[in-house]
Amino acid sequence: MRMIDLNCDFGESFGVYQLGQEGILPYVTSVNIACGFHAGDPLVMRRTVQLAIHHGVAIGAHPGFPDLLGFGRRVMAVSPEEVYAYVVYQIGALAAFVKAEGGTMTHVKPHGALYNMAAKDAALAEAIAKAVRDVDPSLILYGLAGSEIIRAGRAYGLRTASEVFADRTYQDDGSLTPRSDPRAIIADEDEAVKQVLMMVRDRRVRSLQGTDIAIEADTVCLHGDNEQAVRFAQRLYEALRNEGIAIQAVRREERR
Amino acid sequence: MRMIDLNCDFGESFGVYQLGQEGILPYVTSVNIACGFHAGDPLVMRRTVQLAIHHGVAIGAHPGFPDLLGFGRRVMAVSPEEVYAYVVYQIGALAAFVKAEGGTMTHVKPHGALYNMAAKDAALAEAIAKAVRDVDPSLILYGLAGSEIIRAGRAYGLRTASEVFADRTYQDDGSLTPRSDPRAIIADEDEAVKQVLMMVRDRRVRSLQGTDIAIEADTVCLHGDNEQAVRFAQRLYEALRNEGIAIQAVRREERR
Amino acid sequence: MRMIDLNCDFGESFGVYQLGQEGILPYVTSVNIACGFHAGDPLVMRRTVQLAIHHGVAIGAHPGFPDLLGFGRRVMAVSPEEVYAYVVYQIGALAAFVKAEGGTMTHVKPHGALYNMAAKDAALAEAIAKAVRDVDPSLILYGLAGSEIIRAGRAYGLRTASEVFADRTYQDDGSLTPRSDPRAIIADEDEAVKQVLMMVRDRRVRSLQGTDIAIEADTVCLHGDNEQAVRFAQRLYEALRNEGIAIQAVRREERR
Amino acid sequence: MRMIDLNCDFGESFGVYQLGQEGILPYVTSVNIACGFHAGDPLVMRRTVQLAIHHGVAIGAHPGFPDLLGFGRRVMAVSPEEVYAYVVYQIGALAAFVKAEGGTMTHVKPHGALYNMAAKDAALAEAIAKAVRDVDPSLILYGLAGSEIIRAGRAYGLRTASEVFADRTYQDDGSLTPRSDPRAIIADEDEAVKQVLMMVRDRRVRSLQGTDIAIEADTVCLHGDNEQAVRFAQRLYEALRNEGIAIQAVRREERR
Repeated sequence: MRMIDLNCDFGESFGVYQLGQEGILPYVTSVNIACGFHAGDPLVMRRTVQLAIHHGVAIGAHPGFPDLLGFGRRVMAVSPEEVYAYVVYQIGALAAFVKAEGGTMTHVKPHGALYNMAAKDAALAEAIAKAVRDVDPSLILYGLAGSEIIRAGRAYGLRTASEVFADRTYQDDGSLTPRSDPRAIIADEDEAVKQVLMMVRDRRVRSLQGTDIAIEADTVCLHGDNEQAVRFAQRLYEALRNEGIAIQAVRREERR
Repeated sequence: MRMIDLNCDFGESFGVYQLGQEGILPYVTSVNIACGFHAGDPLVMRRTVQLAIHHGVAIGAHPGFPDLLGFGRRVMAVSPEEVYAYVVYQIGALAAFVKAEGGTMTHVKPHGALYNMAAKDAALAEAIAKAVRDVDPSLILYGLAGSEIIRAGRAYGLRTASEVFADRTYQDDGSLTPRSDPRAIIADEDEAVKQVLMMVRDRRVRSLQGTDIAIEADTVCLHGDNEQAVRFAQRLYEALRNEGIAIQAVRREERR
Repeated sequence: MRMIDLNCDFGESFGVYQLGQEGILPYVTSVNIACGFHAGDPLVMRRTVQLAIHHGVAIGAHPGFPDLLGFGRRVMAVSPEEVYAYVVYQIGALAAFVKAEGGTMTHVKPHGALYNMAAKDAALAEAIAKAVRDVDPSLILYGLAGSEIIRAGRAYGLRTASEVFADRTYQDDGSLTPRSDPRAIIADEDEAVKQVLMMVRDRRVRSLQGTDIAIEADTVCLHGDNEQAVRFAQRLYEALRNEGIAIQAVRREERR
Repeated sequence: MRMIDLNCDFGESFGVYQLGQEGILPYVTSVNIACGFHAGDPLVMRRTVQLAIHHGVAIGAHPGFPDLLGFGRRVMAVSPEEVYAYVVYQIGALAAFVKAEGGTMTHVKPHGALYNMAAKDAALAEAIAKAVRDVDPSLILYGLAGSEIIRAGRAYGLRTASEVFADRTYQDDGSLTPRSDPRAIIADEDEAVKQVLMMVRDRRVRSLQGTDIAIEADTVCLHGDNEQAVRFAQRLYEALRNEGIAIQAVRREERR
């Protein structure tokens, strides 16, 4: 039986500033919790961990760049040593809340510019993988399917989860169409659902160029920052269920 | 045989900014490492943990207020909930570096205004003790001898270490003379050494008012931010050794 | 003819985080713009200044504590020298945007804990007044009616604007009922409107104890952070207009 | 008669962290003062402005990226709109201290990664030039000789100051040898002094390839962060004076 994890970023509020919709939680099986660098703060992290445990979703750290002003979305020229230290720090901070609340941390998914940069830069990807392994080798590393993050995770002996996107188009080489291209985003929700079903059932995706290419799909990235996103998540969740696909968090011990 | 721990704050550099003298390390048995709130950053924390392991000193977290500009020394009106979350976060962040480097974290000592406020405020002291216990109940809580921190630590089942000061005078009730009083600081190094010896050997201190009062002394706070402080540490270290006092880190299992 | 200014805090977004309702702008005559310490960032400040100019409302700086996490609402033990420097810095930063956009800055209103502390602490109030005077002596200093801020502003030769609150009750001595008292807030909008009309027309307010006491009312503090607040602002605006009261920004040259 | 300005970055302390040597001040004619983003804080800025006025050196703003952890040296993917707003903000903040102290701000020199990026990126250079012009068109824009910053400054009607380096080698096209090249730095102080004298007297520099190329030299960048740098500054100062070269700050009205 096919199975898939649905993940979304969570816990991205900061101080008085609210971001994110709790309504997404019934439709995802894992959340990536901001750790205070690009978003989140200690109070928010605690509440978010409590909420994740209450909803029974898998908990992951979502480390990002130390750039609250840019929400961790801006490319920064960081060294692998800096990335290593940033990731160790953030995993540890979240792990303490998870432990204090009696939960379990299952995974790590880099955020924003760190995710995108490490997807292509082997040295940064290795810094992330090494940080995860050094803190807890049983953690699963989430990264873009087919990217350097996945390669580095495997090289460091980590279980990995290949992430795919419902609302992004793919190139013939399996990479995402750059956002600068107007065709990068799939606005049509029917198309987005269809793409996910194909990726999960057939392990293939039709590229923008019209070729069906192989893709690994362990987890689908969803958004929880507005109500439309929540409705789409519900719709995708139901479509997957109706196809008989098991929607469940990636298990630590399951593969590889 | 009498024994005493000598501790100092460490790892208080930030980015390009350097603070602290490595030369203090031979004369202390435990270090309190800044965790990125009032000082320290991920790269500094990693290097500091490596250094502490190399020198064989006990490693503690040194959580402070999120006030880099004020070095965590400014009183802030924080709630117990905030303090709890700040302490959990910072212990976790440091713990990850300690684990990655193969070391062991032994203790937690609050920093600056947090230390001073919690020494007198039972609710804040309990928030700290609860945070330590929730993350790792085997950690030793360092706090001002006779303060609310020590009381809260015991109430939460933690091992505690009562901290005394070489260069501060005491009041009849065992509290430190406020810094606003010109007699608060012991400038004469002979006097400072003598005070420590009396505290360690006799478990008593002569108050500013001339009374000998009982004091618990598990650890002495030293400074490592300038060369004179390092020289004083060396002198105190040798004076204690010459008295046959065992200078060693507080042991987790030793008492209580 | 009686006249009154209606002011609200504005420009309190930060990075991706949105706060505040533009819909408040038709119902206020002056805005206090966050300057990047407790809220606001350079892009937000620029857009906010453009918006204020577009709506023809008077522009003021809204300096706060360097505590984004606490939104500048937490008491911090700052020295008058620190407060002076924080206020100079923030006025200057906003002034540059106002100048770049071809507008005029008219006033300064301290934010949050800085406002509350300086209302009672003469040394902090003087630090603020001195900062305003040193940067631009034609700026109007907004502060709690009857407070140390108003006294300090006058002592430093500044024009001042005494601020009153629609939704807060007053004590016999003219101070605000502390928020710890359940009667501190006026939840009934009829009562709130009535209180403002009495303050503006009669320069009196009925204290919680039932006494009519004298109060200066140059400006009323409104909130713009949710839709209910905007509706109340509209209602108050209309009530004042129906009473024939001129609703206009405080003029620099008008008095004193 | 030939004339030259000697400038150095200044006011780069932060909170308890000290950086920079006051001893540099007798040997420079202008300072670039950090504005709180990559370094500096309000108290430091005030003291630095006072010091600059006391020593009679020209005062400039030294805006950088909002990256205290990286000291503004890390490339960040910022938009021209962000750069514009960052520069307006920082100039304004410093201008307020200069005004409060009764001084005059004369120039703006971008810092670190912002300087380097804008030297090559016309859109960022224009954002900086526009920000300077919008806040105060009489300010002089300092930038790398021959760079986009100088071009943009002229295009926006600003007086510019072409900056050269004593301790960096140049390429045939007038650009600096990248730091990745081991020959980028001139370690020999005799060579460094000789290069400056040639640049100032002959308006030429010998490239790493051995060609004498034309270069504009209005100001020389010196360092003030350690004692060796101060000694080199003194030596260069004396060498220039002995050659009869006038060492003086760039004058606003002098050229163009």
